[in-house]
Amino acid sequence: MDAIDVIVTKRDGRELSAEQIDWVVDAYTRGVVADEQMSSLAMAILLNGMNRREIAGWTQAMIRSGARMDWSALPGRTTDKHSTGGVGDKITLPLAPLVAACGGYVPQLSGRGLGHTGGTLDKLESIPGWRASLSNDEMLDVLGRAGAVVCAAGEGLAPADRKLYALRDVTGTVESIPLIASSIMSKKIAEGTGALVLDVKVGSGAFMKTVDRARELATTMVELGTDAGVRTVALLTAMDRPLGRTVGNALEVAESVEVLAGGGPADVVELTVRLAREMLDAAGLSGGKDPERALQDGSAMDVWRRMISAQGGDPDARLPRAAETLEVTAASSGVLTRLDAYGVGLAAWRLGAGRERKEDPVSFGAGVVLHAGLGDRVREGQPLMTLHTDEASRFERALAALDGAYVVGEHAGPDPLPLVIDRVTA
Amino acid sequence: MDAIDVIVTKRDGRELSAEQIDWVVDAYTRGVVADEQMSSLAMAILLNGMNRREIAGWTQAMIRSGARMDWSALPGRTTDKHSTGGVGDKITLPLAPLVAACGGYVPQLSGRGLGHTGGTLDKLESIPGWRASLSNDEMLDVLGRAGAVVCAAGEGLAPADRKLYALRDVTGTVESIPLIASSIMSKKIAEGTGALVLDVKVGSGAFMKTVDRARELATTMVELGTDAGVRTVALLTAMDRPLGRTVGNALEVAESVEVLAGGGPADVVELTVRLAREMLDAAGLSGGKDPERALQDGSAMDVWRRMISAQGGDPDARLPRAAETLEVTAASSGVLTRLDAYGVGLAAWRLGAGRERKEDPVSFGAGVVLHAGLGDRVREGQPLMTLHTDEASRFERALAALDGAYVVGEHAGPDPLPLVIDRVTA
Repeated sequence: MDAIDVIVTKRDGRELSAEQIDWVVDAYTRGVVADEQMSSLAMAILLNGMNRREIAGWTQAMIRSGARMDWSALPGRTTDKHSTGGVGDKITLPLAPLVAACGGYVPQLSGRGLGHTGGTLDKLESIPGWRASLSNDEMLDVLGRAGAVVCAAGEGLAPADRKLYALRDVTGTVESIPLIASSIMSKKIAEGTGALVLDVKVGSGAFMKTVDRARELATTMVELGTDAGVRTVALLTAMDRPLGRTVGNALEVAESVEVLAGGGPADVVELTVRLAREMLDAAGLSGGKDPERALQDGSAMDVWRRMISAQGGDPDARLPRAAETLEVTAASSGVLTRLDAYGVGLAAWRLGAGRERKEDPVSFGAGVVLHAGLGDRVREGQPLMTLHTDEASRFERALAALDGAYVVGEHAGPDPLPLVIDRVTA
Repeated sequence: MDAIDVIVTKRDGRELSAEQIDWVVDAYTRGVVADEQMSSLAMAILLNGMNRREIAGWTQAMIRSGARMDWSALPGRTTDKHSTGGVGDKITLPLAPLVAACGGYVPQLSGRGLGHTGGTLDKLESIPGWRASLSNDEMLDVLGRAGAVVCAAGEGLAPADRKLYALRDVTGTVESIPLIASSIMSKKIAEGTGALVLDVKVGSGAFMKTVDRARELATTMVELGTDAGVRTVALLTAMDRPLGRTVGNALEVAESVEVLAGGGPADVVELTVRLAREMLDAAGLSGGKDPERALQDGSAMDVWRRMISAQGGDPDARLPRAAETLEVTAASSGVLTRLDAYGVGLAAWRLGAGRERKEDPVSFGAGVVLHAGLGDRVREGQPLMTLHTDEASRFERALAALDGAYVVGEHAGPDPLPLVIDRVTA
């Protein structure tokens, strides 16, 4: 086998053989195929595509590059969710304990914030004492005790994907549906979950800007999961506006706790409950306690407290707050006709909720609290949102990000996307 | 500027701006843009193309990465030829002194063998004492004394191209007409010649397998030269069969000396004279001594002897000969209906005339001598070719390369390509 042969095959629009895929993924992981060879192959894949057989082979090769987790020691079925990322998307926080409260085991490996989108681990780390890194034995222990665990993926899981993702990030080869799908699914399949619900976000604040692209990604991932024996279903959900009323690490934890206490914004509650039902259904666990009830009767909150405590966190601790706040008010009376997810996400990022570089710390208190939602009537001078940051000097660039991101008009704007746009099954 | 922006622009099929091209070529040369970024950009260029303005900008940026030579101190006009490479293509050897004998100055920077195609420097190094590396002052001195110089390009000429070529070689991104054209033309324009004739080879033994691809490359290079103020013309010439009767380093030198002595194979003589006329014409030097006459009256041979001597070579020295020979004879009587350039080139390469790895030495004596040409009648048992090598163990793989590369049939085969297929001007 030879790297150039593999590259030329895909460059010239031909199908990669199973042997070529196995070899090139393994050789790249071992350093035999160089970064500059893999990046030209990645560009050829981005531009010429891969078919279902190739994507499945590529995903399996990345899974085989590392360990595959095994939850057969648990007394019940595992089920998990993966979101492609958005603004204010804190759903994992209430969802994992909620599903556990209804009888599923949720072994969720999460990530950190990337660009204008937040990361579940960054959010949970705003809880004093909570730690993201667990050994496999610790994961099993937390799962057994709480029914849900949210933690960082270990080094041993799909190391080929880890290396390839870092390469794609600097070579303009991120936006390939076959490569995005195989990256997500290699980790989720290696994670060992029996069922999986994919939340594919659509809109300005999401990676996929159009319903068509999101559906293509969802279909590819559902096929991959199904081919690998994982019961997989995907929802396409709205990310044209932020989800819920908070964007930022500790701010989103507080909102999640509200949901677990039976309150919280309607869209967060609706999506959490819908995803919980999908996760239970995919695992063959529907018919037990209904998720809506588990939010009302305190059982989901009980799991949350056990889960946070089991990872060293104090569920009663006061969450970090930012030192400086600034209110953004309505310049006129009317209807909030635009509240753009990307603009709000960018503002939160610039306030300190996200990172400039991978090695930067995040500010736990920074972010945006929304006081009005899309379609709400507002009066002149009424607060629309509050910006939170540790450094007042950050307000200027955050306000610049919000320029044009919200509009108060006289008439209602175009209809926003429905919260759940579509459902994709095998 | 940011490497990812440049990559994404071309990946998404958009035109690169002049500023993007200048920046990325310069930043790559300085090591600010990494190999893995340039290789994904090269793949995007290969698959999405570049327009005339982009290719010109890319070529100029590569020229500006190094020095540009200046021959204004010479008392006459410079003119040069570049061949895209073929099997038995020794034309530079008789051509450079021939053009000098007719009044042109020929400052030719040449290369080494690559794969199954030979390199001019490897051929000339088979002459005892001859050296390929000259300083700029030495080049000017040889040019002034002999009228022609053939030597290696210095490190300072288009270093961006040197770095990019090595990268393309290992990343499956060689076969891009914009990148091939800008690679060749950046060196030829930086070489400082006033006029340039391109010999674009077509056929199995050439880089361009079809007339259409060759014409596209020729047109692109003629445009580039013209835009840079170099009077440029291209010929498309046949490389479906070997050129002349010898393939291999010293073997081709001997054949070139025959041509300079007024003899030699008809196709080599015809192409040498045609290219000489084109070179003189492009430089505005036609009307002086005719090249055909300069071969007959010994004046081209005189320049050859001065040129070889000026670079330390002994034009009267005995050339190296290979230790072992093997005759390939006709298995039946008939017509030689096929004599494939690639097969013969591959055989010569395996006999030791070319390199396995860049750092390998070549065998000066190794190669193939043809005793019959395409369309010739042959009798059973008649020698068709003689293989030369230093190691008899190499015969087996050379014979395997020749399997199917020549055919003796009962009737004449399909018409071969005309020696000169087309002429491309601005």
